[in-house]
Formats: sequence, structure tokens, C-alpha cells
Amino acid sequence: MKRALLLLATAVMAVPASADGIVDNVNGIAPTADGKVVRFKALLIDQQGRVTRLVPPGEQPPKLSRRELKKNAGKPLYDWRIDMGGKTVLPGFIDAHGHVMGLGFGALSLDLSGARSLDEAKAMVAAYARANPNRKWVTGRGWNQEAWGLGRFPTAADLDSVVGDRAVWLERADGHAGWANTAAMREANVTAATASPAGGRIEKSGNAPSGVFVDAAMQLIERAVPKPLPKERDAAFLEAQQALLANGITAVADMGTTVDDWLSYRRMADIGAMRVRVMSYAAGVDTASQIGGKGPTPWLYDDRLRLGGVKIYLDGALGSRGAALKAPYADAAGEKGLSFLSDTQLQNQMSRAAMDNFQLAVHAIGDKANSQVLDAIQVLNATYGGDRRWRIEHAQIVDPNDLKSFGKYGTIASMQPTHQTGDRTMAEARLGPDRLNGAYAWKSVLDNGGKLAFGSDFPVEKPDPWAGWAAAFTRQDANGQPPGGWHPEEAVTREQAWWAFTGGAAYAGFAEKNFGNLAPGQKADFIVVDRDPLSVDAMGLRNIKVEQTWVGGEKVFDRAKGVKAPAQ
Amino acid sequence: MKRALLLLATAVMAVPASADGIVDNVNGIAPTADGKVVRFKALLIDQQGRVTRLVPPGEQPPKLSRRELKKNAGKPLYDWRIDMGGKTVLPGFIDAHGHVMGLGFGALSLDLSGARSLDEAKAMVAAYARANPNRKWVTGRGWNQEAWGLGRFPTAADLDSVVGDRAVWLERADGHAGWANTAAMREANVTAATASPAGGRIEKSGNAPSGVFVDAAMQLIERAVPKPLPKERDAAFLEAQQALLANGITAVADMGTTVDDWLSYRRMADIGAMRVRVMSYAAGVDTASQIGGKGPTPWLYDDRLRLGGVKIYLDGALGSRGAALKAPYADAAGEKGLSFLSDTQLQNQMSRAAMDNFQLAVHAIGDKANSQVLDAIQVLNATYGGDRRWRIEHAQIVDPNDLKSFGKYGTIASMQPTHQTGDRTMAEARLGPDRLNGAYAWKSVLDNGGKLAFGSDFPVEKPDPWAGWAAAFTRQDANGQPPGGWHPEEAVTREQAWWAFTGGAAYAGFAEKNFGNLAPGQKADFIVVDRDPLSVDAMGLRNIKVEQTWVGGEKVFDRAKGVKAPAQ
Repeated sequence: MKRALLLLATAVMAVPASADGIVDNVNGIAPTADGKVVRFKALLIDQQGRVTRLVPPGEQPPKLSRRELKKNAGKPLYDWRIDMGGKTVLPGFIDAHGHVMGLGFGALSLDLSGARSLDEAKAMVAAYARANPNRKWVTGRGWNQEAWGLGRFPTAADLDSVVGDRAVWLERADGHAGWANTAAMREANVTAATASPAGGRIEKSGNAPSGVFVDAAMQLIERAVPKPLPKERDAAFLEAQQALLANGITAVADMGTTVDDWLSYRRMADIGAMRVRVMSYAAGVDTASQIGGKGPTPWLYDDRLRLGGVKIYLDGALGSRGAALKAPYADAAGEKGLSFLSDTQLQNQMSRAAMDNFQLAVHAIGDKANSQVLDAIQVLNATYGGDRRWRIEHAQIVDPNDLKSFGKYGTIASMQPTHQTGDRTMAEARLGPDRLNGAYAWKSVLDNGGKLAFGSDFPVEKPDPWAGWAAAFTRQDANGQPPGGWHPEEAVTREQAWWAFTGGAAYAGFAEKNFGNLAPGQKADFIVVDRDPLSVDAMGLRNIKVEQTWVGGEKVFDRAKGVKAPAQ
Repeated sequence: MKRALLLLATAVMAVPASADGIVDNVNGIAPTADGKVVRFKALLIDQQGRVTRLVPPGEQPPKLSRRELKKNAGKPLYDWRIDMGGKTVLPGFIDAHGHVMGLGFGALSLDLSGARSLDEAKAMVAAYARANPNRKWVTGRGWNQEAWGLGRFPTAADLDSVVGDRAVWLERADGHAGWANTAAMREANVTAATASPAGGRIEKSGNAPSGVFVDAAMQLIERAVPKPLPKERDAAFLEAQQALLANGITAVADMGTTVDDWLSYRRMADIGAMRVRVMSYAAGVDTASQIGGKGPTPWLYDDRLRLGGVKIYLDGALGSRGAALKAPYADAAGEKGLSFLSDTQLQNQMSRAAMDNFQLAVHAIGDKANSQVLDAIQVLNATYGGDRRWRIEHAQIVDPNDLKSFGKYGTIASMQPTHQTGDRTMAEARLGPDRLNGAYAWKSVLDNGGKLAFGSDFPVEKPDPWAGWAAAFTRQDANGQPPGGWHPEEAVTREQAWWAFTGGAAYAGFAEKNFGNLAPGQKADFIVVDRDPLSVDAMGLRNIKVEQTWVGGEKVFDRAKGVKAPAQ
């Protein structure tokens, strides 16, 4: 019946309603897959929010008179026009690896990432507790004892000295360890008798837990933290979205979506409050199945949400020595980190997901873990053919002998340039000077025929694509350190890095037909910025300001006007 | 921006695309809220699937020539026409109380409702087990030892004699008891030492469990039943939907939606496979909050899905003596049934839901439970004003002194006429002859100013609105029993009953502005049937066949052509 209606409708339809538009007078630049850029002076957008044409710099822009344009098959070329006054317009960034709800909850809880010492951190905890008297637990994240030069983990006693009457639970910057005060351990019933669980470690002070819980041991405390209410989840989502749009990020891969996260995304999208595009990877195979049923969901909400794959954790992080290494840590005799799954377990999980056509995104940081995934991909590829786009998340420390495997089976390295700049001294300590050849080896991935997708791993690092982009072609941090760049042989070009943060990240999410590239047919996701990113040095690039962010031909952030994503 | 686009679009738009249509040459009848009917010879539907006009019998139908109709503001009145050849067209039925996934799983598992004796039931179990060798558990429902005249509950030994090697678990027809074989009790670790939980009862044979588990005790076995896979849930939904549409039901109130149910509905709707409209009531307050966040969801998928409220169970059923009575059961000395919640607990739960604007639908079968809810409504109404539409589900046995309370605070009695015909001899046994004045008291509800919404409680009873409709004005079953009707003073009129199965059920779900009534502005949800339901007797009414079912102006079931809701 529906088809019949449509046919009939077509037969009698007049010229269809039209709200095509033009974003005119721009310094438009967009990267291409082959490491070049295209330039344009105007962008035509149709009423579905899709790009219909980039007007090249040399071409006369379409005339504005509607009468003249009627000769275009009786249809005006556009119905609205915005003159950008020569401003620079770029594709929206895509962050290929982030944690949307983590970013939002982080924004609503205590952020310790700015603390430069244990004392500063303690002062921040005390101030936050005073400012939030009704929160049952003080929760937060972002501490990094390495950055403080503390030479040890912090302790429960450190926290007790500022908050003794309420539980305090603070995640480390990398998310792989947590720091509790005595009240939190008491509420969680953790005592000297509590054993470290498999895949985790309780730090000790003598016999007693010292207050820091690594990887799987974090659960011992986390299970006692009051669960956020659904409305708090929604508030967190909106908070995260606002931060992303303000940074020029128009789409993200959400790594580890839970059912509650998913329900929150849907609530917000159902009321039209979802602006950013979310490529969702479920927290484990069971969750993927619970949400998606027998496979990925369709693109929902006009390409704003899709559950496409599964995130699987294979090891921990380098900072907490949870990353699984082939040889012991240089700074911890005998310790080799933790692989959460045996080869068989990993392959079984991947197989279960691949069987239902879910994409695989496996977290692997250490060289041992990366070997495991690469081997698993080889095994699985024999059974599960077609366009699978196996993803390795982080791929931080890779045995140089394994790098060539990234060119096989369409494997994608989903990497975070700011991890390199943030981790480099820690990585040197953990690995020693002789095992850094396959570390953060972006160029080697490309040289071996692999594909790169870049992200930030927010909230582990800031959701700041400019910092990631600058790091990617300089191997230097925000202070220009180290001179000449850290292992500069692994830098990629400015254009390659840009692609990995746009079209490459879309490809990694099976979204390249929908968005990620300002080409005809794609969603008009773009940003207006205050400087040309190809005409400034790396430091200038880091300081570029996003003035406007557009998603699907609609302005969703405007720094000047304070346009925000709508509250509920 | 969007608004600006729309305004511009409007300014330049030609005549909008149109696929209005007419369902012509019908014997159209629809009930009204005041117990009358309207008749129409044609139905005009717009391209959004809404009714724009009912053409009354006396009026010349709109001419067919497009040229002539152009004078209608330059717009033809319709673009497609279907001549129904004088067939009877009625609004789609709305079932105000059902269990969608239960219906679907029931259709996929063993249906014992046709068994007329224990021996027949045993033969059906044996046949099903043979036919389904790969199912780990044999599950099913629909047995009723009362209907068998067994004089006792069946036992595990009865089942063991036909299936000994696999677990068997069969729900009673009313869903308030389950029947396990020995293998099921073994897998569930239920032994003679297992105590009956609060709100439930393990039937005993000597010291040992006999095999039947009542109300909360059912959980002891159910927790061992393998959970269905998401794809099995989706198959169950489609199965249920097909059964509903084939019965002429275009919308249902789903009483007790779980998160997994919700995810299944969304999966099916996301791929366009949801045809029937689902007014969802979450299984408890936490689930409502988990799905809806800080309140009901909007209408989704073109008015096909909305979470609007919360289902709360207050007592059990009459058959299993779980209904909470003020005085003991007539046939079980000292037993008064079970109220699952104290007054305070009930009011707290209702308050939590009402605070977030979720509608309340409280299951109450016994007169004690009904008193409790009515009291709670009075208490809550003082705090939560506005249009709350407090629902009591079943309201089967009401103390005559409480009947007047149904006229207060906009309380809705959501009742199931076929429960009266199915339960009457059992109700007489349970209550004795002197406590039946407030039993299934539909007319008293109306006379006291209360509102009625009718349903079937599928799969407890068949999702057959014709049976419910016929029972409602005759108080007789399919065999015309008892002569003159059972307590005929509580019959409602044919038209009142029809309204309770259409507009009344929509009102009870806050859907009366969307559907439920074939009036302009409402969704065009209608059925084509083989006989005029006002020109046949009750037996004729029960035998009416639904030939076509339309939802939102789209044909979704056609008996002749075997049109089915699309499989995934």
C-alpha cells in the first residue's frame, strides 16, 4: 500500500518543497583520502542537510536571483544563503575513540586533571566536597601521580586528611586505576582480607589496602558507588555533547556503550536533543546483542546514532602497568601486565560478535596484546569474509615485527596522537629505550598499508582535535617538547593526520557514505574557525578557535551567540 | 536555523505533495463516548495516515474528477481511492491490557489452553517435546486444573511420566502459578528444604515440593529457565503483532514492559516492522525510570510506541488464591490471599512514579487490593493534581462499598470481560454466593461515574475483542451460558462496551488525541469485517471475521491475500 501511495504521490506531485541553501564566501578546505586537500569558496546544502556541491575557488558562485535560477529545471538552486565573510570552513572533526558518558559525568564531577601536585589535588577535593554537600560520594577523575612527580601512588590517608566523613573515589587520568579514601573502602567492605581479583591489583600498605585499586580491582569500590539516575545520565550526555560541539567535533565513536548509555542516547534523540553523531560500540558482546539483536542497528535519527560494533578490552594501560607486554616492564622487575583474555577466549568473543556482523574494536595497548589481536584477526578473517574493518583500539606499543600485519585484512589502527605526547616520558620509563620502535607508530601503520583513525580517548585526554592534529605531524606537545619531536620518524603529514580525524575516522565507523567528508551526498557537518589550519605552525594550529559548528546543515554551536545544544 | 529554513521553505513552496486517499463505499460504524454510534459511507485519509473526514451516509461522496476537485483550494481531495464494495468498516480495537511479549513467546512455546484434561495436557507435552528436540527446556502455558475438573493441582510426577530427561515448566492459564517436572526442580536446585518466599507458595506433597509454584514462588524455577536471545524476542514480537492485527487489534496497552521488551520494540520499529501501536507500561518504577528517564517518552514512530506509565502488581489472581481478599476464601479456610505491598509501600511506589509524571496502572484483583489502591489514589491525588488517569487493572472483586470511589479522581477501571465468563464458576467457588455483588461490576463502575477501558489480558485470555465485546453486554460465554447471563445487572450496553474497547481504551492510555476514534485528526486505524456487528446477535458477533486491518492509513493485514506484518 505504502509503495502504491508513493507512486501515486509522485505522479501528481508539483515541484517538491525545497529549502536548499548555500554557505557562501568561505575559505573552504577539506582533506582527502590520498593526503591532499580540496578547496572551495561555497558549499551547497539540500533540505536533508546534505552537501550537494562544493563550489571551487575559480568558479563564479551561483547567482542569487531566484528568477534566473528558475531555469535550473524550474527549481531554485537554494532558498537561503549565509555569507561567511571569507571565514575558514572545514569539515567537522570525528573523534574515533571516546567515551561520551564518561566525558559528561567527568564534566559534572571533580576534574583533577589540572592538579600539578598531590597538595593541589587535595585542595581541589576539599573544595569540591564543600561545594557539593548533598552528593553522597565525592567522585572524580584525572589524577596522575606521574605528572605530580610523586614517585608513589597516592593513598587513602592522603584523602582522609581532607574528606573523612564521606566516601571519595577518584579515577586515574587513564581510567585504569582508582583512588579511594577510608570511608569509600568501608562502604565497599574492602579490608585487609580482600583479595585482588583476576586482572586487577589492590595496592597495599603493609597488609592493608593503601587506597589505590588497579584495573579489575577498581570494581571492588565501583560497585559501591551509587548508580547515577537516568536523568543524571541525560544531563551528562548533554554536557558531553556541548563540549564536543564546542571543540568542533561533529561525530564520535563511543567506545563501550552500555544499555543505560544507549537508553540515554535514545531519550535525548527522541526529543530532538541529539546533535552530535554517535557511532556506538557496545560494552561487550552480550550488550551488543541486547541492544542490536541479531546485528547492528540501522542509522537512526537522520544518521545521528548507530550501534555498529563491539568494544572488547584485552589489556590495561601502560601507566598502571596493566598493558600486556611480551617482556617485563623496564621499571618493575618481572611484571608483564595483564591480558584479560586468552587467545581462545578472545577469538571466541570476536567470533560471537562477527557472526552477527558486529564490527570488532579491540582495546590493545601492550605489544603482547597487539600480537594477540592481530593473530586473532588472521584466524577470524578465514571464517568471516567481506568488509569487516577489524579495529585495534590504541595499538600503542607494537612489536616492530608485527607492524606489517596492520596492512592485512583491512585492519584499522584507531590511535590517539595526544597519548603519545602525554605518555612519552612514562612510556620511556615503562619500556626502556630499546623497545620504542613500534611505539605510537602512526607512519609505520600507513607505510605497511594499514588504515589510521585518530581520536582523543576523551575523557582520558581532552576532546581537543587540534591538539591531536598538531601532535600527529610534530610528535611534540603543547610546549613544543621535545625539540625535533619524539621519534619523529613516526610522524604523519599534516594532511594525513587531518584525514585520520575526519574521513578516516568515518571509514573506521562504516560511516563514510554518510558523513566525514564534505563531498556531494554527505551530511553537511562543518565548522567555521578563526584561522586557516594550513597557514599556521603547529602552535598556531593548537590555538585555533571553533566559532561555529554545523551538523547536517544546521548550526548547533555558535561561540559568539552562545548557541548551545538544547536542554531537555 | 531550522525554524528559519522552514519559514523560507513555506514561502517558496508550491502546492505540497499530496497522497490523500479515500476508502469509499463502506458500511462505516464507529462508537462514541456517550454510548451512541456514528455511521459513514466513506473515510478520507491524508498523507500522514490521519482521518480528515467521515462522509455521512446521506451525503454525495466527493466526486472523482480531479479537475472538478481542483476548485478545493487548488488541491485534489484525494489521490487514491479504494472501493470497499459496501463492506463494514469499524475502528480498530484497542486492547487496554495485554502482555505483548508473553503473547509472542506463548505462540512460540507450548499452548495448553486447549487441553480438556490432564491426560490431554500430558499428551500435548509429550508431542511438543518430540517436535522440539533442540529446546533445552520445554516451556509453555495455559493449563487450568479447574477446567479439567481435576480437583487438585497437577504434579511433577504427572509430567515426569511423559518427559523425564528435560526440564519442563508450564505456566497456569492465569500466569499466577507454574508447573514443573522433577528435572526442572533439579536444575533450579529446589528441594524439600526450599522455603516458600514471601508472596509465594510452594505446593507440597508430603514434605517435598509437588511441582506447582504459586505467585512469587514461581521465581524459584523461572530463574533457571534459559533467557531468550534478543533475536528470539524479536521473533516473539512479530508473532504477537501478527496475532493482534489478525484479530483486528490496532493498539494495545502493554502491561509490564521490561527493558529487554522495550529494546525489542525499538529494534522492530527502527527497521519499520512495528505496525501495531504499543502504549507501554513499564514493569515497575525503576524500569520506567531506566527507559523513560525523568518522565514518559514522546510518541515515537508516528504514534506507534510510547512509554507512558508504570505497571505495579499489588496482588495475585483468584484462581491460585493469590488475590487479596478482605475475608477468607470460601473454599480455603483462613486463606485471604496475598497483598504484595503494604499501604505505605504502595503509596511510596506510586508517588515515585507520579512525581515523574508516569501514569499509574496498579494490578488489583481482590476486594482488599482494590480498597488499597482506591485509598492510595485518594491520598496521592491530594499531592499530584492534574489529569492523572489513575488506572486499576482488573478491578475484579470490589467491595460494593468501594464502587463509588471509582467515580473519583478520574480513576479508570481497566477490565477484561472474558475474565468474567472464564472465571465465573471459579469465582463462585472462591467467594461463595454472597460476595459477588461487586464482581466484574462493569455497569456499577459506569454508574458511579468511573471510566471503563476493556481488554483481554492476553495471553491469559485470547486476544479476541469479539469475545470480550459479546461477553460485555450479555454476561454469557461462547456457549451462551449461563442463560440470561451471570449477574446480568452488571452488563453494559453493546455500544458502551465497544467504546471501552476503542476510544475508552485510548483515553486510558493518554492516546485519545492520536487514535482510538475515527474522527478527523485521528490516525486512520480501522478494520474491514464480514458482518455488521450491530445487526447480529452476540453469537454472531463472536463469529465476525476480520478481513483487513489498517493502521495509519496503511493496510497491514489482509486475510484474503495473506498480508502479514513484514518479517525482519
